[in-house]
Amino acid sequence: MYAEVAGFYARQMRRLDEGDAEGWAATFTDDAVCRISTRPEPLRGRAALTEGARAATAAGAAAGEQRRHMTGMFDIEERPGGLLRVRANTIVYATDARGRSRVHQVCTCTDILVRAAGPRRGLLVRDRRIDVDGA
Amino acid sequence: MYAEVAGFYARQMRRLDEGDAEGWAATFTDDAVCRISTRPEPLRGRAALTEGARAATAAGAAAGEQRRHMTGMFDIEERPGGLLRVRANTIVYATDARGRSRVHQVCTCTDILVRAAGPRRGLLVRDRRIDVDGA
Amino acid sequence: MYAEVAGFYARQMRRLDEGDAEGWAATFTDDAVCRISTRPEPLRGRAALTEGARAATAAGAAAGEQRRHMTGMFDIEERPGGLLRVRANTIVYATDARGRSRVHQVCTCTDILVRAAGPRRGLLVRDRRIDVDGA
Repeated sequence: MYAEVAGFYARQMRRLDEGDAEGWAATFTDDAVCRISTRPEPLRGRAALTEGARAATAAGAAAGEQRRHMTGMFDIEERPGGLLRVRANTIVYATDARGRSRVHQVCTCTDILVRAAGPRRGLLVRDRRIDVDGA
Repeated sequence: MYAEVAGFYARQMRRLDEGDAEGWAATFTDDAVCRISTRPEPLRGRAALTEGARAATAAGAAAGEQRRHMTGMFDIEERPGGLLRVRANTIVYATDARGRSRVHQVCTCTDILVRAAGPRRGLLVRDRRIDVDGA
Repeated sequence: MYAEVAGFYARQMRRLDEGDAEGWAATFTDDAVCRISTRPEPLRGRAALTEGARAATAAGAAAGEQRRHMTGMFDIEERPGGLLRVRANTIVYATDARGRSRVHQVCTCTDILVRAAGPRRGLLVRDRRIDVDGA
């Protein structure tokens, strides 16, 4: 299960780093809610998540930076109904066009994951709460 | 075993980041020794470990920073008597009240872990050596 | 398999950080190719890889820095013929003699791994492509 969870986050975050906003949003359930401590309102549903990912990519481009997510420190708990509660940390790095890198953000994350069947088989995020350090 | 070890470090380090000094110290055996390259003397036993964690939290607060540990690069070896020797790297991040993040410390760690029975069932650290880069 | 792959990278990168250029090169097949986005030509074969690792260690020493690699975000795919394709991210940290740490490089990595038999039993890299952000 550890491998399944770690692989899920690796693929999910890579889509974000590669600017694949729709592919990233597709790793959430249709009715997913994503609360971010830096935003007044949660993102609800696929369209809002896609838009949120596009805005993040645009912010990186406007800053002239490549953003890169590293997620780890997984604490995985099985919950009734086949759910998983995952706590994790994510570090966001930023690199400018001259190759200078820095730590952009330090985040802690609490997710509820479900196992989907059918064409989108595998893990999906149903609920995410992101707390950005210093915000 | 990889999942067990990685989950142990995730929960242990999260206690430190959340300021739970006693909870962090409880992840060591009663007679544990923790050697840190930046300290002249090792920390020996539960009370000293609790005090060490409190001092680390106080140092972060005094600097106006949230500290966050990310441990990874696990190299796990089974040893006779059910012991595990784990080598790992830990990066400590620091974020100030304005949300500016940086790398605080880069550490390499060599631990001897034991499997405890009873109420504190699971892995515990019996011996830890932390080398802080540049110190 | 996740544990095997993660342990392989932990040991491989630790050799680089400890200045063991030959030990690092020995984690590649004899005919391995390593393409790095910051170099005009790929490194081909054991001697070139050893030389490349020595040059990296020398560059760190010349800068008065300890370099440290953290690899994670593993996305592992089994390929025909017992091969593994692994995508991963590597962050390189640098710490100077006064203990000040920073992010040196952010890299994405795509590897083809093979399983070796005999004295060098275990995983070996046959093909590596490293893209350094901002380069």
